Amino acid sequence: MTAVPAIVLVRPQLGQNIGKAARAMLNFGLTDMRLVAPRDGWPNPEAGPAASGADAVLGGARVYENVAEAVADCATVYATTVRKRGVSKPVLTPAQVAADIHAATGQAAILFGPERSGLEADDVALSRAILTVPINPEFGSLNLAQAVILVAYEWSRGRGLAQPPAVALDPPAPQAELDGMITQLDGMLEAAGYFHPPDRAPSTRRTLRTMLTKPGWTAQEVRTFRGVLSALAQPRPR
Amino acid sequence: MTAVPAIVLVRPQLGQNIGKAARAMLNFGLTDMRLVAPRDGWPNPEAGPAASGADAVLGGARVYENVAEAVADCATVYATTVRKRGVSKPVLTPAQVAADIHAATGQAAILFGPERSGLEADDVALSRAILTVPINPEFGSLNLAQAVILVAYEWSRGRGLAQPPAVALDPPAPQAELDGMITQLDGMLEAAGYFHPPDRAPSTRRTLRTMLTKPGWTAQEVRTFRGVLSALAQPRPR
Repeated sequence: MTAVPAIVLVRPQLGQNIGKAARAMLNFGLTDMRLVAPRDGWPNPEAGPAASGADAVLGGARVYENVAEAVADCATVYATTVRKRGVSKPVLTPAQVAADIHAATGQAAILFGPERSGLEADDVALSRAILTVPINPEFGSLNLAQAVILVAYEWSRGRGLAQPPAVALDPPAPQAELDGMITQLDGMLEAAGYFHPPDRAPSTRRTLRTMLTKPGWTAQEVRTFRGVLSALAQPRPR
Repeated sequence: MTAVPAIVLVRPQLGQNIGKAARAMLNFGLTDMRLVAPRDGWPNPEAGPAASGADAVLGGARVYENVAEAVADCATVYATTVRKRGVSKPVLTPAQVAADIHAATGQAAILFGPERSGLEADDVALSRAILTVPINPEFGSLNLAQAVILVAYEWSRGRGLAQPPAVALDPPAPQAELDGMITQLDGMLEAAGYFHPPDRAPSTRRTLRTMLTKPGWTAQEVRTFRGVLSALAQPRPR
């Protein structure tokens, strides 16, 4: 039993590209498509013809308002970006991500940004690692479906080779539990006046989220950290 | 010096697909495009816009009347087919073809058939081996540009130059800095009465240390976490 990643299209613009992505996925056995705030709503009549028969993928696609909801059940999230970002996250090739996914337990998700602009910093902050296709440095021009097909191909390619993980480590906590922990800390920091000056708060919040996403804490570890926070918020009477 | 294969589009139908194939090629450093009897002649005004900037590939494309002329200078010819044919030739994956090409000397060519029908038996007969992309047996629907991009990607992947992006992450903080952070937290938790009952304190401390060691936080991240702790210990006056 090998883990099958979800393909998350974040704010996709054209229905045609959603259809092409579905076709690309199904060629290599991926079926879990998730759409975050598709620009033209969903369903989109332009998606079907472009899917060339991959209707089951489109029919099963789930729609979410934001990325956090779309990956709430996921233990590991990868953000696909064309270029390296100035963030302290590992940068992996499609082959490395495929190997990761095959070796891991828990649901994985791979984020792909809108056609024009790509993922935003806040989307990347949610992710444990960045996926970058090594590309001609003088001509990098992958469209959405092409990026999806390369990632799906690599996943499929590694599937036959998938080894059971040597050590059955507990998977990282689902993203929703991590979010709960971050929200708890955020509330305490807000009350303590930590986010000062206010105009730097968004970037500070991203930094904290990146740090707390990095360890891949298990559900038990997330609960322990929440216990730590609760103890600091409400010291026990002596 | 690694061999760069020619991409031979045999009787391609739509100019748009020729453009997309050029774009796919250039993403992974392939530039030698050869066209055999393109249905709508050459040049084709629909190819340029679809190439998204890969004009140099289109501009350098050479046109031939038949496959034999197109591959006259080639030492090894591969025929891309979706399904295995009843012919006695080796059937290779894109990865195997890439490895072959990198190991060989002499010009290689990879044939791709027309969009609808694929290569004919006579085209395949010219080839030393068959290239087949391993695909979902229940849904095989690769278009021309997608087949080209997977083959180009594999070639690029196997090339010495196509290194995974350098991962220039900051290293984890020195252990002494991590220890300082853990000591700070420990003091706060001690004051908050967190270590209760006392006989479980050693095991709780080990759990916390394991959790906080897991992320491999950088020196900057350790400082950030200590700032968080300081803020929680001494809220800022409003």
